[in-house]
Amino acid sequence: MTKNVFSFGEVMMRMTVPGYELLTQANTLRYSFSGTGVNIASAMIKLGYEGYLVTKLPDNPIGDAALSFLQKLSIKNNYITRGSKYLGMFFLENGFAQRASRVTYTNRLESSFNTSVLADYNIDEIAKKADIIHLCGITLAMTDQVRESMKQLAKKVKEQGGLVCFDCNYRPSLWEGGYEEAKPHYKAMLDLADIVMMNEKDAMFVLGMQTNQTTREEQLKELIPQVAETFNINIIAGTHRKINADNTHVLKGYIYKNNKFVFSDNRSFTVHDRIGSGDAFTSGILHGELAGFKLEKTVEFAVSAGMLACTISGDTPMSTAAEIEAAMLYETADVNR
Amino acid sequence: MTKNVFSFGEVMMRMTVPGYELLTQANTLRYSFSGTGVNIASAMIKLGYEGYLVTKLPDNPIGDAALSFLQKLSIKNNYITRGSKYLGMFFLENGFAQRASRVTYTNRLESSFNTSVLADYNIDEIAKKADIIHLCGITLAMTDQVRESMKQLAKKVKEQGGLVCFDCNYRPSLWEGGYEEAKPHYKAMLDLADIVMMNEKDAMFVLGMQTNQTTREEQLKELIPQVAETFNINIIAGTHRKINADNTHVLKGYIYKNNKFVFSDNRSFTVHDRIGSGDAFTSGILHGELAGFKLEKTVEFAVSAGMLACTISGDTPMSTAAEIEAAMLYETADVNR
Amino acid sequence: MTKNVFSFGEVMMRMTVPGYELLTQANTLRYSFSGTGVNIASAMIKLGYEGYLVTKLPDNPIGDAALSFLQKLSIKNNYITRGSKYLGMFFLENGFAQRASRVTYTNRLESSFNTSVLADYNIDEIAKKADIIHLCGITLAMTDQVRESMKQLAKKVKEQGGLVCFDCNYRPSLWEGGYEEAKPHYKAMLDLADIVMMNEKDAMFVLGMQTNQTTREEQLKELIPQVAETFNINIIAGTHRKINADNTHVLKGYIYKNNKFVFSDNRSFTVHDRIGSGDAFTSGILHGELAGFKLEKTVEFAVSAGMLACTISGDTPMSTAAEIEAAMLYETADVNR
Amino acid sequence: MTKNVFSFGEVMMRMTVPGYELLTQANTLRYSFSGTGVNIASAMIKLGYEGYLVTKLPDNPIGDAALSFLQKLSIKNNYITRGSKYLGMFFLENGFAQRASRVTYTNRLESSFNTSVLADYNIDEIAKKADIIHLCGITLAMTDQVRESMKQLAKKVKEQGGLVCFDCNYRPSLWEGGYEEAKPHYKAMLDLADIVMMNEKDAMFVLGMQTNQTTREEQLKELIPQVAETFNINIIAGTHRKINADNTHVLKGYIYKNNKFVFSDNRSFTVHDRIGSGDAFTSGILHGELAGFKLEKTVEFAVSAGMLACTISGDTPMSTAAEIEAAMLYETADVNR
Amino acid sequence: MTKNVFSFGEVMMRMTVPGYELLTQANTLRYSFSGTGVNIASAMIKLGYEGYLVTKLPDNPIGDAALSFLQKLSIKNNYITRGSKYLGMFFLENGFAQRASRVTYTNRLESSFNTSVLADYNIDEIAKKADIIHLCGITLAMTDQVRESMKQLAKKVKEQGGLVCFDCNYRPSLWEGGYEEAKPHYKAMLDLADIVMMNEKDAMFVLGMQTNQTTREEQLKELIPQVAETFNINIIAGTHRKINADNTHVLKGYIYKNNKFVFSDNRSFTVHDRIGSGDAFTSGILHGELAGFKLEKTVEFAVSAGMLACTISGDTPMSTAAEIEAAMLYETADVNR
Amino acid sequence: MTKNVFSFGEVMMRMTVPGYELLTQANTLRYSFSGTGVNIASAMIKLGYEGYLVTKLPDNPIGDAALSFLQKLSIKNNYITRGSKYLGMFFLENGFAQRASRVTYTNRLESSFNTSVLADYNIDEIAKKADIIHLCGITLAMTDQVRESMKQLAKKVKEQGGLVCFDCNYRPSLWEGGYEEAKPHYKAMLDLADIVMMNEKDAMFVLGMQTNQTTREEQLKELIPQVAETFNINIIAGTHRKINADNTHVLKGYIYKNNKFVFSDNRSFTVHDRIGSGDAFTSGILHGELAGFKLEKTVEFAVSAGMLACTISGDTPMSTAAEIEAAMLYETADVNR
Repeated sequence: MTKNVFSFGEVMMRMTVPGYELLTQANTLRYSFSGTGVNIASAMIKLGYEGYLVTKLPDNPIGDAALSFLQKLSIKNNYITRGSKYLGMFFLENGFAQRASRVTYTNRLESSFNTSVLADYNIDEIAKKADIIHLCGITLAMTDQVRESMKQLAKKVKEQGGLVCFDCNYRPSLWEGGYEEAKPHYKAMLDLADIVMMNEKDAMFVLGMQTNQTTREEQLKELIPQVAETFNINIIAGTHRKINADNTHVLKGYIYKNNKFVFSDNRSFTVHDRIGSGDAFTSGILHGELAGFKLEKTVEFAVSAGMLACTISGDTPMSTAAEIEAAMLYETADVNR
Repeated sequence: MTKNVFSFGEVMMRMTVPGYELLTQANTLRYSFSGTGVNIASAMIKLGYEGYLVTKLPDNPIGDAALSFLQKLSIKNNYITRGSKYLGMFFLENGFAQRASRVTYTNRLESSFNTSVLADYNIDEIAKKADIIHLCGITLAMTDQVRESMKQLAKKVKEQGGLVCFDCNYRPSLWEGGYEEAKPHYKAMLDLADIVMMNEKDAMFVLGMQTNQTTREEQLKELIPQVAETFNINIIAGTHRKINADNTHVLKGYIYKNNKFVFSDNRSFTVHDRIGSGDAFTSGILHGELAGFKLEKTVEFAVSAGMLACTISGDTPMSTAAEIEAAMLYETADVNR
Repeated sequence: MTKNVFSFGEVMMRMTVPGYELLTQANTLRYSFSGTGVNIASAMIKLGYEGYLVTKLPDNPIGDAALSFLQKLSIKNNYITRGSKYLGMFFLENGFAQRASRVTYTNRLESSFNTSVLADYNIDEIAKKADIIHLCGITLAMTDQVRESMKQLAKKVKEQGGLVCFDCNYRPSLWEGGYEEAKPHYKAMLDLADIVMMNEKDAMFVLGMQTNQTTREEQLKELIPQVAETFNINIIAGTHRKINADNTHVLKGYIYKNNKFVFSDNRSFTVHDRIGSGDAFTSGILHGELAGFKLEKTVEFAVSAGMLACTISGDTPMSTAAEIEAAMLYETADVNR
Repeated sequence: MTKNVFSFGEVMMRMTVPGYELLTQANTLRYSFSGTGVNIASAMIKLGYEGYLVTKLPDNPIGDAALSFLQKLSIKNNYITRGSKYLGMFFLENGFAQRASRVTYTNRLESSFNTSVLADYNIDEIAKKADIIHLCGITLAMTDQVRESMKQLAKKVKEQGGLVCFDCNYRPSLWEGGYEEAKPHYKAMLDLADIVMMNEKDAMFVLGMQTNQTTREEQLKELIPQVAETFNINIIAGTHRKINADNTHVLKGYIYKNNKFVFSDNRSFTVHDRIGSGDAFTSGILHGELAGFKLEKTVEFAVSAGMLACTISGDTPMSTAAEIEAAMLYETADVNR
Repeated sequence: MTKNVFSFGEVMMRMTVPGYELLTQANTLRYSFSGTGVNIASAMIKLGYEGYLVTKLPDNPIGDAALSFLQKLSIKNNYITRGSKYLGMFFLENGFAQRASRVTYTNRLESSFNTSVLADYNIDEIAKKADIIHLCGITLAMTDQVRESMKQLAKKVKEQGGLVCFDCNYRPSLWEGGYEEAKPHYKAMLDLADIVMMNEKDAMFVLGMQTNQTTREEQLKELIPQVAETFNINIIAGTHRKINADNTHVLKGYIYKNNKFVFSDNRSFTVHDRIGSGDAFTSGILHGELAGFKLEKTVEFAVSAGMLACTISGDTPMSTAAEIEAAMLYETADVNR
Repeated sequence: MTKNVFSFGEVMMRMTVPGYELLTQANTLRYSFSGTGVNIASAMIKLGYEGYLVTKLPDNPIGDAALSFLQKLSIKNNYITRGSKYLGMFFLENGFAQRASRVTYTNRLESSFNTSVLADYNIDEIAKKADIIHLCGITLAMTDQVRESMKQLAKKVKEQGGLVCFDCNYRPSLWEGGYEEAKPHYKAMLDLADIVMMNEKDAMFVLGMQTNQTTREEQLKELIPQVAETFNINIIAGTHRKINADNTHVLKGYIYKNNKFVFSDNRSFTVHDRIGSGDAFTSGILHGELAGFKLEKTVEFAVSAGMLACTISGDTPMSTAAEIEAAMLYETADVNR
């Protein structure tokens, strides 16, 4: 039977300046709706799962537009609550070569999602239905109520036998109190999680772990097993990303499970739309695990999914399993007729 | 010497769905920056004055874009403070015929302007320089700090011999406590004002005045003289607007000064962009007064300015005095080559 | 419990030349997906029903795009079959004033829908679930297989106690053999229908009925009762549309039930997008009937729905019951904030 | 055999600000290529004639674009000379309601056409082939070389038995010396013309004729016969245009031939794109004459052509004879499928 | 005297999703008209020849738009028949990096061209006028009538002394019966051809020839001389294309004539619009042959033409001989002022 | 105190074909306003200076649009004169890979600027206020009046203690008489200049200097010191630009001061919008000098500014000092949140 994948998180309105102009130069925007939860649900639907998003949207034309957009991605409205008036928004100015992209946020703390409370969500039904639930560090950085809903969701799903996936995703600008403020909340989530997305930087900075290693890979190999053991985590996975001098990106994934590290190839590629690539990687890891792939295949699949997400306009991954598997083979068709 | 016209108010980012689509149907927006203060400053510049805007903009790419837009309108940056992170925003879905336009706001109370304090503004220099300052009821509905800045600006300008213009502009959705909450603030502003934009509805609802008259014009004629006397106001002016069955609009203006009412013709016209028409009317009244027009000419000029503002894309009036005077004559050129 | 409204019909890709250019002048198109079935399902969802579309879409990127669009309208994919390669398409060049709009079709007979067979549809489940099913004369003009599916759907729904709504919608260009070819198929559908959308022209031309009356209204009053009796139809409804010299449209609706005719007011209005107005009228009639409105309210509601559909971009009605009821009162808000 | 219609004139690049924005507000333009000569040639091709344009285009990418555009209109390149570097240009800001459209020209006197000389054109071949040649007052206002080419073309075509059509089209801004400068040039053209487009204002102002009549129609009736006699002109035709209070336009045409005046109905209509309407009227007069219509039909056909040209985007008429004849009947189809 | 180059083939409407969005993400399309025949005729016109297209277009607004587009490319309408109702269409979603482009076709077999018969074309006049006629394997895959017209055109042109150029262009999706179905038709065309575009894959798969060689170049060198001898073909030419890891393309051309192989350099380049590059290569071979270039120059010219076609938006090559010769020199100007 | 940087030069309207289409393919343009003077003033404002442009704009809607655009860039209107009717314009077709960009100019010699005279400018006030004035070789190629204004500006600024910066910027197409015509004018400017932008080609071709060296760098090292000595120039700086096979550009800058040459690294980068890069380099040199940077830092800063200008849409540099300094470090952020 098709597995049910749930994600919990804020839906944001993304407003992108077309082409490579700055906000001061242009006068039009393209808009879509996204967020880690949206990306995970949508990516998993593309991979053949039932994908559900647990969130709250404002009860006004902007909420209507967000819901329409989610439905277009085949996300159902069953667990989407409506109420309140605001939606988080961000503006994206595309970078070009040596000029980096810029993201500017509006005040999201007043959004329907960030002011939502546990009672807004049908938590028991979700817990019963979910084979897996995805939660992330961005959501963890929001309000106390949201953190409460997040923890309860993780707890209840776990109690009912579902898996909990937590993506550390630490964003410095969201934690006024820095790592110290974040640490206890991260620990609480890691205690609940079966699958965790992170790398050595999260271990060192958020969890405050120490290492004498100097390269990223050595640090990773020393710290991740400690994290797995401390928090009793089944799978830890993540990526290292690098930008070449010619502005191509290099992505390398790893997965750690049963005391074994597997690394993907270094995939090098040109980037059309950077945002959402990490969520595509996560969806690849989840798919590999749910589909029973060997670790070697899982991590190559995940990194190919992350690479293809960079070839798609917008945040949301749109590639099917067949397309991702083709990309794993390093073959590029010219034109598919 | 050219007169200096100041206005104080929030700059908002207006994001308009192109054509007649709804937010759920479209995927692009056109953006510009506006607000009553912007509209008044810009309209007065077009009429030949030095126009200054007193406001605070966020110190980020959105604030940069707002400032660029204001400068494009010839508004100088001398009295525009930068700081904080947010800008108020609204989305506009254009109506068509029997379907009304819809405006949806974001949470503006956290904006740089609405969290600004008196010390953000160079109030003494403004007071010394201003021949007239324009303030409005929308700003009055915001935060206590903003109200404080507003009252101090009015007081200081008055002390230095400048005129204070106050536009009542009561917006029900902005006052949680309704008329009762608004009334004392409105009274405080009316006490300070020399020129007031309002009509009989403001007198009846905001000020709680009574009348046995039944038509709008009779109510106006009874109540406005009482307001002028009570608050010692030199000029009161305003409009009545009506929408015909064929979706043309009818605009009629009035001005009351020295115990005398003068009404304009009923101007009937097709509307391209409704927002900003009231501010254009106000700018016409101010120009008539500053230029020493007879009341008859002032009110016809103002109503023609309001009408032409409806033929211009965006909120901000763009017509010159010559264009407005031509429109007063009921003549329409075909193509100006 | 929420009623289930089904419609059966082809989804077409509508490609509209932007603005008022001709296909020979422009180089861009806007696309959406529509069809009578889509419009009915979507309009009924907006009015608060569960709306289902029974159709077949190609299994390729165009079919994917169509399905995404339908989901965006909240139409679920439960009864949408995928398979085959083609989708019917039409190009729309907007007319202006004395220049009429032009629609140019591609060869739709090879479409997935028009080559679909009964076995493509889960007919028993549909019949069990449907409170009402909507079918139309455009579908009737297609292939023998489609006609077969259509008749079986009507029959099975009727057997299970659901209502059958048939919209005559005779399109001359679709019947090579003219009225003679169409007549037996129309009679078969009328025999099955509980609610029929038609007017006197359908009676005279498609059914070949005679009348000596000369005005449209008199012809209607004479012929419709005969149709109702002959085919044992519970409700017949329809519209008369006229274009004024100033290009405004006039719409007048009627409903006939229990030997009683009720006519709506003549509603006069400006048109933004003409296509889909008839389907909005139908949805109004269905809503009135399902909601138990009096006939007078039903027909005014339906004609207001038809009018508002002309203010919406695209074929598909987007108005809520609240918006339609407001339009029934002849009031137009200026800007809804 | 199909008649050959030639026109002589400048091709200009038209750059239109989209929608109703001003040049100071927008940042995009739509461009096309037009001019009276282009419009006449293109309109006559649509009416079934061989249409040729005699002009000179720059030998650079702008000239290439102009030529492509002309070819798209089915105008052949046989009599289009290439050389020099510049093309005349104008910017169009669309008016709305009481706000008039604005046209701003670039310096056209240095254009390839306006610096062209008689030797640039294959005048003998043209004269042999032309059944009719169209020339206009705008061209007459340009340089001495252009005027020379214009007069020689008229003379040679006449010698070979072709008809000469001259459209007075006096544009005040093009004649620095005013009517006095223009008069001798106009007289020279009228001496050569068989068919002339003008009205009473041309007679009074350009030719300096006197009348005691006060209405436009009475002035027309007194002066036009005098012009016809003085210059020995076979046909004179023209229009009166008026703008109603509701911004619809009224167009009335007349034709004078063999001492007989025929007036068309007053046609009232909404305008989408004003420019080019006069040329469409001219093409209707030429078609009526070449096709042997009665005067009554000719003038109604011409005024309907002028009206339909206002429903078409761009300067160039795009209507077929069948479409114009349908418009003569005051019938408007809703949607042509 | 300028040589007359004819091509025979279907005109298709190409509808491209702008940028890199998928059909499910976007709502606008850019359209143009193309096809191998269009590309060859247009490319040869750019190289200084008279280019004619032999085809049939529907007699409706889509056919009008296609004809306008062809005329814009300087293709004359002399040999373009009008009639029937449909035009073949395809949708193009641009790929990016590792994500391939996708082309989705509509049902083209019912198009005016594919239902055309020999009598639709003025075959005798064409044969008399043509210095060369171009035919291709895509057309060969269509209907029996089209194949009949194609063979007769080749035969008649050959009889009158013109050259026959055949481009093998085998598209697997167009031949339901695979190579076996295609083979006899290909042999018939090769029997008639003087110049053939193909490579070793066509020889091996379509013609079923055998080779023990393992590299593409060795296979080519063994098989092409056999093809030339068997079918008595004067010139055979073609390309090998490869996509690099960084998504640049490498193109290498060859030409075989008089028992001699000449290969071009490997040209490596970035691709903007892939479609049409092969036709540009063909036009380069034809130009080299007609202009009497040495084989070395011909094949470098052809491969440069193919490369430049990838820098042009749309299918149709737009480069002049001068531009192609500049590209042969490996020099890239920065900005041509 | 903030330094005042003046530049003198023509404002041109830049009309760019969107994407990579040619003028013959597209029908829309994006427009902005630029010119060396605009670029320098705007770039210096971004770097923290008061930037003033001395120019003359037409008194019509195009001049209004130009002024609005300049104000948007924070350029004040104090020294911008209005009058006359024309503005210089150019069309830009973007190249792609091996296809070079094309610029086509309109006849700019009749522009308001190029017909302006010394009396149009408030030369004494400018001279008093300017810490530095920038002039360039493009302006020098225009009319005698413009040259006169240019020389007087340089002279007066120098007299008042300001610095004179002259950019040689020789454009062959602007000098009909070639180097011979240009030479005396260049010498006159070099005599007045303190800072000069040039490289060895200017020395050899414009000044007619001789060298036996064969590489560009050796020629530079031999000739530039001679120029500095001959004309008593404090600083000479410039760039060498090269295009790689993969279409990336390489930029290397140099600066010569006090008998010392300093060269920057070779910076290699992808180009989005080529135009304006040279002016960004100049602004970097001026900033380095005014800010008292060491030569090594100045030239790296300048070349990074030039590189970043290629990542910005439009001609005008938009980077802040902080952004340029970040780029000097060879670090590229992924996304700035």
